Amino acid sequence: MTAVPKPLPKSIATVSLSGTLPEKLEAAAAAGFDGVEIFENDLLHFDGSPAEVRRMAADLGLQILLYQPLRDFEAMPDDLFVRNMVRAERKFDVMEQLGAEMVLVCSNVQEVAIDDPARAAADLRRMAEAAARRGLRVGYEALAWGRHTRHWRQAWDIVQRADHPALGLVLDSFHTLSLGDSLQGLDLVPADKIFFVQLADAPRLSMDVLSWSRHYRNFPGQGDLPVTDFARAVLQAGYNGPLSLEVFNDDFRAAPARLTAQDGLRSLIWLESEAGGTPLPAPPVLDGVDFVEFAVDYVAGRELAQRLESLGFAYAGRHRSKAVDLYRQGGVNLILNAEQDSAAAEHFQLHGPSVCAIGLKVDDARRAVARARALLCKEWREPVGPDERVIPALRSPDGMLFHLIDDRDADRSIYESDFLLDTPAETVHHGAGLSAIDHIAQALPANRLDSFVLFYRSVFAMRPEAVHEIADPYGLVKSRAMVSPGQHVRIPLNVSESGRTATGRFVAAYAGSGVHHIAFRSERIGQTLEAIDRARAAMLHVPDNYYDDVAARLALDDALLERLQGLGLLYDRDAHGEFLHAYTEPFHERFFFELVQRSGYTGYGAVNASVRMAAQAQLRHS
Amino acid sequence: MTAVPKPLPKSIATVSLSGTLPEKLEAAAAAGFDGVEIFENDLLHFDGSPAEVRRMAADLGLQILLYQPLRDFEAMPDDLFVRNMVRAERKFDVMEQLGAEMVLVCSNVQEVAIDDPARAAADLRRMAEAAARRGLRVGYEALAWGRHTRHWRQAWDIVQRADHPALGLVLDSFHTLSLGDSLQGLDLVPADKIFFVQLADAPRLSMDVLSWSRHYRNFPGQGDLPVTDFARAVLQAGYNGPLSLEVFNDDFRAAPARLTAQDGLRSLIWLESEAGGTPLPAPPVLDGVDFVEFAVDYVAGRELAQRLESLGFAYAGRHRSKAVDLYRQGGVNLILNAEQDSAAAEHFQLHGPSVCAIGLKVDDARRAVARARALLCKEWREPVGPDERVIPALRSPDGMLFHLIDDRDADRSIYESDFLLDTPAETVHHGAGLSAIDHIAQALPANRLDSFVLFYRSVFAMRPEAVHEIADPYGLVKSRAMVSPGQHVRIPLNVSESGRTATGRFVAAYAGSGVHHIAFRSERIGQTLEAIDRARAAMLHVPDNYYDDVAARLALDDALLERLQGLGLLYDRDAHGEFLHAYTEPFHERFFFELVQRSGYTGYGAVNASVRMAAQAQLRHS
Repeated sequence: MTAVPKPLPKSIATVSLSGTLPEKLEAAAAAGFDGVEIFENDLLHFDGSPAEVRRMAADLGLQILLYQPLRDFEAMPDDLFVRNMVRAERKFDVMEQLGAEMVLVCSNVQEVAIDDPARAAADLRRMAEAAARRGLRVGYEALAWGRHTRHWRQAWDIVQRADHPALGLVLDSFHTLSLGDSLQGLDLVPADKIFFVQLADAPRLSMDVLSWSRHYRNFPGQGDLPVTDFARAVLQAGYNGPLSLEVFNDDFRAAPARLTAQDGLRSLIWLESEAGGTPLPAPPVLDGVDFVEFAVDYVAGRELAQRLESLGFAYAGRHRSKAVDLYRQGGVNLILNAEQDSAAAEHFQLHGPSVCAIGLKVDDARRAVARARALLCKEWREPVGPDERVIPALRSPDGMLFHLIDDRDADRSIYESDFLLDTPAETVHHGAGLSAIDHIAQALPANRLDSFVLFYRSVFAMRPEAVHEIADPYGLVKSRAMVSPGQHVRIPLNVSESGRTATGRFVAAYAGSGVHHIAFRSERIGQTLEAIDRARAAMLHVPDNYYDDVAARLALDDALLERLQGLGLLYDRDAHGEFLHAYTEPFHERFFFELVQRSGYTGYGAVNASVRMAAQAQLRHS
Repeated sequence: MTAVPKPLPKSIATVSLSGTLPEKLEAAAAAGFDGVEIFENDLLHFDGSPAEVRRMAADLGLQILLYQPLRDFEAMPDDLFVRNMVRAERKFDVMEQLGAEMVLVCSNVQEVAIDDPARAAADLRRMAEAAARRGLRVGYEALAWGRHTRHWRQAWDIVQRADHPALGLVLDSFHTLSLGDSLQGLDLVPADKIFFVQLADAPRLSMDVLSWSRHYRNFPGQGDLPVTDFARAVLQAGYNGPLSLEVFNDDFRAAPARLTAQDGLRSLIWLESEAGGTPLPAPPVLDGVDFVEFAVDYVAGRELAQRLESLGFAYAGRHRSKAVDLYRQGGVNLILNAEQDSAAAEHFQLHGPSVCAIGLKVDDARRAVARARALLCKEWREPVGPDERVIPALRSPDGMLFHLIDDRDADRSIYESDFLLDTPAETVHHGAGLSAIDHIAQALPANRLDSFVLFYRSVFAMRPEAVHEIADPYGLVKSRAMVSPGQHVRIPLNVSESGRTATGRFVAAYAGSGVHHIAFRSERIGQTLEAIDRARAAMLHVPDNYYDDVAARLALDDALLERLQGLGLLYDRDAHGEFLHAYTEPFHERFFFELVQRSGYTGYGAVNASVRMAAQAQLRHS
């Protein structure tokens, strides 16, 4: 049996969090971090002494692992170097009061800096000597936009030349990966010369690296950089210091610090496991959406039931102990929960008629819960009546529940155990031919996208797809789908900076994030649409101009075009196949349904989403 | 006497405006545009026929000048070209119904496009022939990211080769200027071959040109591109078709369409004049801020008066006919307006205690008003009592008034004419040594910055300076100063995407944009601070850590450092000189004062603004 690697200390730079220094420290401690890096401006703006900061951190159980007050230090002309050494001594005074043992020096960005590694090494050695006299240590880091030192190998060369025990290397995933560099060769660096490791991810953006770094960094797992490979190389090199997040992000600066801190720690725990450190329980294998549960009251429940019946769903039975109804069609189970004093009732009170829970089919519910808990997720237990199944559930970041359904050891389905079914369990109601849940879209406040991407990626091992931009008449909407490895669960996440778009209005009306549409799959959507009463189902009208264009653009034959237009279907295709879909009007401005038929096609009809948004907007005006 | 050039028709592409197609057309008409370009998706999403769109535009007095449904047309492999011609005929059908006489074809971006100008010319000639059969015309435009045709000279070469009267050139300022190109050589193009001109500006950003174009374009005068030079070349080439705005901007997509449309037309009127077309009256020469007027009620007025007295201001007299008081110090005049049924009272009702008007010293008030009116600004006339001076005033985009004070023909100042002064007019109250208004900062909703930049730039010929980013504890604040040519009037504009920053909170509490701080200049700020009661004046406390850092960072000598710290002064310097400044605590969370001493220094102490924001945040928490 091999030893399980011990978890490394987890740290976060105060610049990654919003607020005043005390708020930042409190949030880091509440999330469970072991330590922090103090960003210089946070100290400068704090109206109290460094010794007070030290006490505050100690009271919160946080170590101050790093202080970062020195820039543009090494390889300067002589007069400036003399001044820099004076500056360094003043900052060392502060560090002693602060109880910070390590200072970070980034590579010089000044034009006057001298291109001479020997000179840089000599200067850093002088600083290390001064630091060592006070029992402090100096970490040297290559900035991606340093004047002469940009790659960690150059920084390592300088550290080697300086050859002082109080001088070591600081590695930063952003500075390395943003240049397309890797940590190849790090195994040749003695582990004790890697003094500190800073971690950040980022979306791939085509802009200058400085702007990219200052505004768009995010936590590992939220972006597109190979941070896992980076962390793996760090662990394989034998590094056993802190893993520390250093993120400059406009949204993080504005978001509640506690939420950000929790995401940060979740990200590090996930990353450590992915990179071969302390392992997490394996992610669940997702086999599809088993049910969707709506929080309703009596009135909304009646109205929603009628809408569902118009789409071919049939009433299937009532819950054994609760005011909860089941509607079914094909493999789709929809639960309408009007039970008082339940999680659903609480959800209804906050959000009105809304999706309050999703049931996911998993291979092993207990392992899935253990993983989620290790990733700081909250478990939820609903009161259970006699004979009813205990279904483990997790709260997602917006309070919605994910029930984890694992039928391995069950002799009957949860519907048989928990409901008084009107028809025998094995009867499938085919209705209008809807067979499965294709995808469930969530609308989020614009600054919460990264948080949800991390949740789905770390807890359920779902993969983020490319971001699509969709023009709503009142602003842009960005859409990014999270998809399970087997493609059985698809959750597009939609955000909008504009409060006037469908997404922005939903987020405002709904007071947060939530499911704003559910797409049901049909294998024969033409027949499905012919089977239902499209007026009663409130299918959204598609303008004739759309069909004129789709015909010209995609060279559809007249028969297909006529059929699409007759049924009010939208059309798209990609390299893999075709997509036909139709939307309903919104239910209480909260959510709407979509009917889709996909043959190989891998997207969500983003090209047609703006037609839907324009139609919904015209509906509001009419 | 040379003839004054006739104004060219003004047009806007519907994609530049927010909303549904009817809303866009209505906004363009309300602003006073002559015509529109119909963006294809706006038509596709409209639930009505092209003929209905034609009627709607005609009812609103708008011409449909251009339709843009065809991309990736020319120089395609044969089979695709055949399909493209079929597509073109279908789109020509739509154009006939729409009453649009010109179609825009952008240069092909597809990988399969053939790199052969002769082929492109032959294809476009085929299209022009087909268009001409229906009385339509084709405009060809080089996209900055076209596959083979990126520069307008290449497009012109292709148009020349095609040699068909129904084919001409479309010029677009963004596509030309984003590549660093110019219109040099345009004088060789016959004016009647320039079919259409599209105009857009943009901030200088270091990102790929496609993202830059799709999200960050703005109106001429709002960005950094030499659009005036571009427009001058167009006019000099003899072009006399429409000037049309084509702007893709995330904020414009979300903003009220009427505001955007008015900005757009203002921008074109200004641009035409700057470029040598129909001239505007010359901008006023600004000679400083004559007064600042606060809207107060009795209670807030008393409280504000005390705050002003603590800063060395003295009561100077009461208005002849209104509940309006004057406070003076050095060259600073502050007016406290508590008059009922006035613009100030309306301002107070909307915004609470606030700056409702600013008096600007100008060389010729009447000319300034004529210019502003030509630029679509609203004039304002306050009721005037006997013997009082009529002072022309303009409403700024947020409703604040700018009084224009021109003492050329006056035998006495507005204070002598309108106020019963307690002291002889020639007496200067030196107080604590404040001598002038240094700058007046406004906070704006994040998406209004471009609008205000255009207002100050076009109406007052003020120049936008570089954008500074300031870290508030709760998010980033962007600051961009507008400065008059003689530097006598400085108005920094602050915006924040975060609602939790000082700026974001101001905008929310204040229900819009407004003055959030006023900086008074002293020539001897040390003496000023010693002369006032700093506690009563509510001077904002600066943390000791700030001084430790400024000493280390700027190598200040100990005597200066001790003096700064003793007086609570912040310090900055640039290549031109030094800046010493101190802030007061906010007055009713609405505005605060700043005391500054500048010797040559050209900035606003942005490096210290985050110290102020942190201190203000800590104040709110204490």
